[in-house]
Amino acid sequence: MKKRTEEKIKKILEKIKASQKILLTSHIEPDGDSVCSQLALANYLDSLGKEYQIINQGEIPHKYLFLDEKKRIKNKSRPRRLSPNSEGFDLAIFIECSNLDRSGGVRRLLSKKSFLINIDHHQDNSLFGKINYVDHSASAAGEVIYDILDVSGFPLDKKTAELIYVAILTDTGRFRYSSITPKTFRICADLLECGIDTNFLTQRIYYDFSERSLKLLRTVLEKIELYQDKRICFLTITHPMLKKFKVPYQDTDGFVDFSLSIAGSKVGALFLELEEGLTQVSLRSSDFMDVSKIAKSFGGGGHKNASGFTQKGKVQRIKKALLDSILKKLKGKDNLS
Amino acid sequence: MKKRTEEKIKKILEKIKASQKILLTSHIEPDGDSVCSQLALANYLDSLGKEYQIINQGEIPHKYLFLDEKKRIKNKSRPRRLSPNSEGFDLAIFIECSNLDRSGGVRRLLSKKSFLINIDHHQDNSLFGKINYVDHSASAAGEVIYDILDVSGFPLDKKTAELIYVAILTDTGRFRYSSITPKTFRICADLLECGIDTNFLTQRIYYDFSERSLKLLRTVLEKIELYQDKRICFLTITHPMLKKFKVPYQDTDGFVDFSLSIAGSKVGALFLELEEGLTQVSLRSSDFMDVSKIAKSFGGGGHKNASGFTQKGKVQRIKKALLDSILKKLKGKDNLS
Repeated sequence: MKKRTEEKIKKILEKIKASQKILLTSHIEPDGDSVCSQLALANYLDSLGKEYQIINQGEIPHKYLFLDEKKRIKNKSRPRRLSPNSEGFDLAIFIECSNLDRSGGVRRLLSKKSFLINIDHHQDNSLFGKINYVDHSASAAGEVIYDILDVSGFPLDKKTAELIYVAILTDTGRFRYSSITPKTFRICADLLECGIDTNFLTQRIYYDFSERSLKLLRTVLEKIELYQDKRICFLTITHPMLKKFKVPYQDTDGFVDFSLSIAGSKVGALFLELEEGLTQVSLRSSDFMDVSKIAKSFGGGGHKNASGFTQKGKVQRIKKALLDSILKKLKGKDNLS
Repeated sequence: MKKRTEEKIKKILEKIKASQKILLTSHIEPDGDSVCSQLALANYLDSLGKEYQIINQGEIPHKYLFLDEKKRIKNKSRPRRLSPNSEGFDLAIFIECSNLDRSGGVRRLLSKKSFLINIDHHQDNSLFGKINYVDHSASAAGEVIYDILDVSGFPLDKKTAELIYVAILTDTGRFRYSSITPKTFRICADLLECGIDTNFLTQRIYYDFSERSLKLLRTVLEKIELYQDKRICFLTITHPMLKKFKVPYQDTDGFVDFSLSIAGSKVGALFLELEEGLTQVSLRSSDFMDVSKIAKSFGGGGHKNASGFTQKGKVQRIKKALLDSILKKLKGKDNLS
């Protein structure tokens, strides 16, 4: 580890030790990396006996709940401003959140005295913290948390190792995306030394479909839309489909992977109607295209191979806008080869 | 590496260097690990300028063909005895083949003068070689080949690293099975240092469905059979289904993973009618059950979490026999919990 990085981590650790009441948060609609990175850092705070709360805007995908045995995550659909008499947080740690807006209403929980620490791995992080520790080379925020715990001297236990593993597993698309580095695999080797069960964790995260959601998946696969000689692949889950199959929208996490399942598909998208008039769009790409830039132009964020955004309006209109945007991005490039 | 292991590898390397004509082979219907392990060792033989042939019984799954750029694998559906005047192989290296029978008709290619080297990682290897190097702790034969190349001093190039990566990737079910060790991840870190592209490789191996095979998958998912409160899950691809969707049976590789996709499913099987009256059965399990023992009782082989066998007869009869066998195995255990 570079000396400068270690110094930065030490500053973060000092700030944590000096704080009384800490807020841990991440981006809206938290994913595996944000949930697990927060919980792993919380294990360290527990070891220090710190008072803290984990609050994000949006529901936690059902499949990650088993990792929060003590139910420490108190997510809110719309966090409200603290009452004027409330003590508030003297320290707020943002993990895997590229800018303040991406945390949604959580910023309403901050007060003037809240010191902001920003821990992330996104290329487009706006460095909004008082301390910013943004490691672009990390495949997941979980990798950054691993480094922090390493410097802290916190002895990695099995529970914490599980959390960091799931953070990496999910943010790399099961060790798929090109964000993986040799260090990623070396960290996973260390996590395995802690006794984690990769089979159990992979089963829980990737294979625990309900019969209902498997039926929904079949229907989604029936209605694949292909453009540009199969190079662009769109999948759609409408709100009526969710209602018909009685599947909570969080349980469709992972469906988007099928948008890159057709041989030749280079850019994939899943349009998920969270409710009538509100669509969450997940984007996937092979290395040919950086979809995070497209997601950003729609007010979202993410990584080169996996990103997303949420839009109001009719799904057909959003679909058309996204297709136009992808086609525009292709213009100038010879071909999607 | 233990001194004894290193000594054994040195003996293998000496034997290779002293041989004139070498046969590389593996088990019938070779999978990712056997194909890639053979090709990786072939790269080493190329560097020595050795004369060799790669011959297995059975077709190579289509998705691995891109890894054999020079088309070095000469598989045969039924290898025939060499003509009496043929020179034959003075060395035959069996990789990922637990016993001689599992190589199918390849043994017909051997002569009295053929020296047998047996390189494997299966628990049930029968140690049929003159030199047996069977490492039970390895997640894939590819890991064993990595160790051999390491001792040989062969400088790992990107092409060889790709082969070892795909061997490990496929034999661990994308880093899923409990056969993974910290060493597995450390080897993958080294392979990544050679410049391999995990995104590209994972895409080619796991996401290059044709539209036709995706349609077939939908149909397979429509006809899931569940037993014992969803703990046992059977999937079926009949020969007429293959014909209807015009999908070669090799292209259904990976479908079996869906047999463990239903929450609660502990044992899964895919029944694939290769032709009228001949069914290939792939088994998958969570750590609760060692399916390799079941596969063995049907004349097959494999690993604790992933194994298989091929049977003649009607698929319904085979299905019933397998279900009985699984239920029998469960008897005595409290429950499939």
